[in-house]
Amino acid sequence: MTDHIYWKNGVLYLLDQRALPFKKTYVRCKGFKDVVSAINNMTVRGAPLLGVVAAYGVVLGAREIIRRRKRINKTDIAGIVEKLAKTRPTAVNLFWALRKMTEEYEKHKHEDDPAEALLQTAIDIHVEDIENNRMLSLFGAELIEDGDTILTHCNAGALATGGYGTALGVIRAAHESGKRIKVIATETRPYMQGARLTVWEMVQEHIPVELVPENHGGILCARKIVNKVITGADRIASNGDTANKIGTSMLALCAHEYRIPFYVAAPLSTFDSCISDGGRIVIEERDGREVKYLGDRLLTVKDVKARYYGFDVTPAKHISALITEKGIIEKPFAKYIRMLFLKSEKRPRRKV
Amino acid sequence: MTDHIYWKNGVLYLLDQRALPFKKTYVRCKGFKDVVSAINNMTVRGAPLLGVVAAYGVVLGAREIIRRRKRINKTDIAGIVEKLAKTRPTAVNLFWALRKMTEEYEKHKHEDDPAEALLQTAIDIHVEDIENNRMLSLFGAELIEDGDTILTHCNAGALATGGYGTALGVIRAAHESGKRIKVIATETRPYMQGARLTVWEMVQEHIPVELVPENHGGILCARKIVNKVITGADRIASNGDTANKIGTSMLALCAHEYRIPFYVAAPLSTFDSCISDGGRIVIEERDGREVKYLGDRLLTVKDVKARYYGFDVTPAKHISALITEKGIIEKPFAKYIRMLFLKSEKRPRRKV
Repeated sequence: MTDHIYWKNGVLYLLDQRALPFKKTYVRCKGFKDVVSAINNMTVRGAPLLGVVAAYGVVLGAREIIRRRKRINKTDIAGIVEKLAKTRPTAVNLFWALRKMTEEYEKHKHEDDPAEALLQTAIDIHVEDIENNRMLSLFGAELIEDGDTILTHCNAGALATGGYGTALGVIRAAHESGKRIKVIATETRPYMQGARLTVWEMVQEHIPVELVPENHGGILCARKIVNKVITGADRIASNGDTANKIGTSMLALCAHEYRIPFYVAAPLSTFDSCISDGGRIVIEERDGREVKYLGDRLLTVKDVKARYYGFDVTPAKHISALITEKGIIEKPFAKYIRMLFLKSEKRPRRKV
Repeated sequence: MTDHIYWKNGVLYLLDQRALPFKKTYVRCKGFKDVVSAINNMTVRGAPLLGVVAAYGVVLGAREIIRRRKRINKTDIAGIVEKLAKTRPTAVNLFWALRKMTEEYEKHKHEDDPAEALLQTAIDIHVEDIENNRMLSLFGAELIEDGDTILTHCNAGALATGGYGTALGVIRAAHESGKRIKVIATETRPYMQGARLTVWEMVQEHIPVELVPENHGGILCARKIVNKVITGADRIASNGDTANKIGTSMLALCAHEYRIPFYVAAPLSTFDSCISDGGRIVIEERDGREVKYLGDRLLTVKDVKARYYGFDVTPAKHISALITEKGIIEKPFAKYIRMLFLKSEKRPRRKV
């Protein structure tokens, strides 16, 4: 598997993304509560990764109960799922993984140790996420041309997923296929996922990268310094409206204004076919202190109030195409997304 | 005068804006070179303030030459002006002030000590800037309604000007007139002028203020959390295209997309009637290290390249009105700006 998340001897090891790129340390999740904390305190982030971590979290929660009471029932599983579901409200992959784990419990509830089956499902979710990323990246790479300069926001890389990455997966696949591309990464305030994680991933793979504050979206698009924009997603509604890291909607609007393609790369586990549009996506509001402090360094007047929405919604009209493991979804998004989830014979059109 | 810039016994005192709001220390400019450094190293910033500081810089430069050689000639003044002009390329107020100082030298070059007249002109520029800010703020305050929540970017306050402020002057005047308003200030990476300076000014005057990263422009406009946006300007072209702190164009685009008024507040010294449009405005590119480090704290991978444009250009079509000391300029901007600079009988329409 990948080295930023792995399961070993009943312990879930998570690379602490808060410390990157300066320190490579792992948080050892021996129990259920450790997983809840790791999601809450941003040890891990990134929609697909949260799904994988939550799945392992269910395993740890189930194991604890079975160890204590020799058995586990539906209410126990529901309790575990509820606590994990409360950690982060926006990324739908978390809920998707929890639903899969609950279904898996139902299938195996009469076995001696249902946690064994749950562990296998968590591993399957993890492996499938990597495979899906690789597949969507191959589709996405076809949209990238030799010589492109690609703007990306936040981190939708290996670190944000089970492995390989979504937006950065597309960039990786394009690079691996020999296309000469350059990446411009936004810092992504306040957690600096772009500055700390995306830059780190690109430097490690020798993909040319430059860092800018995200307030550069306007000038980069207006001057055509970038000619593609690509991001990941935390939740995609049935009409294609996409929740992603705060700031994404501004970049998409800039790209749209200056006729630069704006792509969203995400596995199908990021699609929420239960909601009609982005207005129904719950946006997490985090503690304003995360904006006021960088580590323990105060950045502003001590007592001022700060506001921090973790995500925003990019309207489908500002998105050029959605890149999934089943192919490129073009407009009209609603029609092709519906076909995909109805398992219709008709596949979304693959762009060639 | 104001306490962030004052002249005393032949020394120019500048409040060090890099240290705010944590420390209130002054940089004492005893000589010409001190002024050049203070502009270069961001001790002072803000287009109107740069004009005032440059004017005092000419005085210090002229005094040094007169002290050394007992006289000063046109070439000396041109040399002084050239060095100051090279400090920052975007804000036109700097060039405007240098032109005024050069004209003043021409008028007084046959006097015993032309530096005396230059000092008086510098003081006049300073005093007039404050007066102009107060006047434009009174005009601008008429656009602000009781209950407004106003988004502003960077710092266009007292600290950015001779005193009182442009965008924040409008907010101050509205507040002073009894309107209950709330300000949302963007942090403004990488120098954090919003977090450090705008928040500080608002807190000092008990005007309710909240801090957000500038990537919040999309969500704040989409959800109508703000209902006005107002910024200052570094240079306004004849057609109304406006250069201002990097990120302004994105906020204007968001405001435009969601039909929220976007106002630019600036004195006439910020208008550059020599250029037809914003494409002709030189945008300062600063050292990428300013993005990579916060103080001495590294924010990213050490060797990565970072890019930092200090400003961007907001197209006139995304600006609702320009607020000046002569009144509110509405569309078509080109027509009213031309009238203003031709000293036509017809004044720009004042909105009531």
